[in-house]
Amino acid sequence: MTGSQDSDNGGTEQDRIEGGAPGDHPRLVRTQGVTAPLGFRAAGIAAGIKASGALDLALVVNEGPDHSAAGVFTRNQVKAAPVLWSQQVLTTGRLRTVILNSGGANACTGPGGFQDTHKTAEAVADALSNWGTSTGAVEVAVCSTGLIGDRLPMDKVLAGVTEIVQEMGGGLSGGTDAAHAIMTTDTVPKQAALHHPQGWNVGGMGKGAGMLAPSLATMLVVLTTDAGATAEQLDTALRRATARTFDRLDIDGSCSTNDTVLLLSSGASQIPVEQADLDDAVFAVCDDLAAQMMADAEGVTKRVVITVTGAQTEDDALIVARAVARDSLVKTALFGSDPNWGRVLAAVGASPVTVDPDRIAVSFNDSPVCENGFGVDGARDVDLSGPDIAVVVDLNLGESAASIRTTDLSHAYVEENSAYSS
Amino acid sequence: MTGSQDSDNGGTEQDRIEGGAPGDHPRLVRTQGVTAPLGFRAAGIAAGIKASGALDLALVVNEGPDHSAAGVFTRNQVKAAPVLWSQQVLTTGRLRTVILNSGGANACTGPGGFQDTHKTAEAVADALSNWGTSTGAVEVAVCSTGLIGDRLPMDKVLAGVTEIVQEMGGGLSGGTDAAHAIMTTDTVPKQAALHHPQGWNVGGMGKGAGMLAPSLATMLVVLTTDAGATAEQLDTALRRATARTFDRLDIDGSCSTNDTVLLLSSGASQIPVEQADLDDAVFAVCDDLAAQMMADAEGVTKRVVITVTGAQTEDDALIVARAVARDSLVKTALFGSDPNWGRVLAAVGASPVTVDPDRIAVSFNDSPVCENGFGVDGARDVDLSGPDIAVVVDLNLGESAASIRTTDLSHAYVEENSAYSS
Repeated sequence: MTGSQDSDNGGTEQDRIEGGAPGDHPRLVRTQGVTAPLGFRAAGIAAGIKASGALDLALVVNEGPDHSAAGVFTRNQVKAAPVLWSQQVLTTGRLRTVILNSGGANACTGPGGFQDTHKTAEAVADALSNWGTSTGAVEVAVCSTGLIGDRLPMDKVLAGVTEIVQEMGGGLSGGTDAAHAIMTTDTVPKQAALHHPQGWNVGGMGKGAGMLAPSLATMLVVLTTDAGATAEQLDTALRRATARTFDRLDIDGSCSTNDTVLLLSSGASQIPVEQADLDDAVFAVCDDLAAQMMADAEGVTKRVVITVTGAQTEDDALIVARAVARDSLVKTALFGSDPNWGRVLAAVGASPVTVDPDRIAVSFNDSPVCENGFGVDGARDVDLSGPDIAVVVDLNLGESAASIRTTDLSHAYVEENSAYSS
Repeated sequence: MTGSQDSDNGGTEQDRIEGGAPGDHPRLVRTQGVTAPLGFRAAGIAAGIKASGALDLALVVNEGPDHSAAGVFTRNQVKAAPVLWSQQVLTTGRLRTVILNSGGANACTGPGGFQDTHKTAEAVADALSNWGTSTGAVEVAVCSTGLIGDRLPMDKVLAGVTEIVQEMGGGLSGGTDAAHAIMTTDTVPKQAALHHPQGWNVGGMGKGAGMLAPSLATMLVVLTTDAGATAEQLDTALRRATARTFDRLDIDGSCSTNDTVLLLSSGASQIPVEQADLDDAVFAVCDDLAAQMMADAEGVTKRVVITVTGAQTEDDALIVARAVARDSLVKTALFGSDPNWGRVLAAVGASPVTVDPDRIAVSFNDSPVCENGFGVDGARDVDLSGPDIAVVVDLNLGESAASIRTTDLSHAYVEENSAYSS
């Protein structure tokens, strides 16, 4: 994003260019994405899929030597054609390329839509093979995002595939172009890269500004690493990370047909990685991308974290936190900077987790507003006018806790979502 | 409401005044409420609980000879003091009076709040006893609605109780005043009365314009009948009716701490009623009140009915219909008159009911927009600019169906709910 954010995170582009281990701790930067690790090239172009002429086609290519990969996908039963395709090719635990388009989800498009995805993967494989990389469609994952229900303009997609393979470069700009090309209602591209002191890296890009929900979001994320890791190691790290990051981002409770998170390893650092180190690094990149998605969610005016403590189990804490995060009355109150803690209690009590109303405590931004189930003096005067709101609900029933990232429900959310397809 | 709506429903005030059975069919009118049946008096006054000076205290008194009663209450675990009180007194199956206030929910107010409710019931019983009706607090149900978390101004409530017992009258105006006095963000009072050709009647009033959800709503409803019926008959009729009316009204998925629906019988018609006839009549009045609540929900610009057909069970149909009714992306699209059927499919697929995406069909206002899981020609051109939208989702898996009433998600909803307490 900006230079100042980069230095806030303690890293610079030099980290990678010097190839060194600049310190004892992993360092996270936002100026780099999928091409931060060695062995990856990327590109983003305007293929004409979006009527606006904005960038709309992205490519990430793993040049190896390894091609291990893992993926997680939407839990929505209505899955877009590219999700069905990518799930299938991922069963090999191997990927060479990801092609992504914005400007159309290719969801609910029937058998014809699936053929479009298949043709796109074949075209990518053919173009890469012409360019010297021998590959097949079965090594190409496809991701799409945009309006549900319309077929893609395949003439533009296929011409774009030919062009993007020629554009592809190894520098950081290719990764940034790719991050731009997957944006829909996002206002900023989202990238993060972690440089591990052992000398390997994890990079990632993501998009997702609406329809963010429990089972991921219309959220496309491609993660890359040059650490030496098997497909099983990648799968373990990816599932652990997504369960605690993207799965705990819930903007509007809606669950997309297209959610996809992919992790590809080139092994180009020639450094084999320990599972725990890989888990931590992938988590850190996912967590940062999730925070960027929350901050850029549709219509957001408040970045809200709902934390439930004192639950009997972590699952209980998560269910209650999600119930509060999804409550329209809580979300509209927060939009209005209104410390309306009664709505939080109503949402807690309506959740399927058994609670004791007389034990519940609530705080807003560390100011207690409710204790033992009823209000404390000054609860109506807590200042919530800033952009960040932390809501903590203590059930006082046990030792477990969990947090959900969400946003307020604003006029801008309604505006943006009432005029999307028409 | 208005004379024209009244005559649309085929009844006039004369129906009751003439005491006759004007036809073979039950007739429903909206100009009458809880005092339509014989044996009931009601009143509504401004007690000063609301700062605005609007009516805020209502009373319904059953003059007998019978005093059988039944009630259903919110399923929220966080229950307001008046709910805890009224559940307790209803265990006798007997009620003489209901006192209701707007201007404060008396929820999350701790032991002090419960004492306030108890004192209110005692004051009502004392005032009625002074006025010649021997009764005790155990025959007085209490309902409150308004902001959660604040104690009620008990000086005003108790002075109001003394005054309202004096104001109480038997005419229709007392019922209408009561219907006005329970309004919060409602813009119109909600009453309905059914005159049965057998010579008995059911009347009702309700309020509820936000927080309407599965387990009822911040919805207070008092129903009355002069049919001769036991508490068991009333309970059966009430549970059957609420399960298919108020429980299927879901404006924003939020569930109140105060929901209460009461049914009182005076037996004053001296006509014993068959269960099936009572069931039908109570259902008809509840159904009409639910429709009035939908039409007057907070920020409503579209009255929406989501119907799911072709489900394997009615429960499945209900779960899917509710998932669609609660989806913010569907609701904002409908606010924008946007036939964005892809969002409907995404909501169906995200529900916990197992569906076959390739069998789903969707129509908007009888125009097919999706068949076999993908769009039909012209789907984007369906005109949804009118105030009523019928969404039908056919799962094509079985023979069961269910409907949920809901509304769009509008700027006015956000506006109204972002500035409620502060």
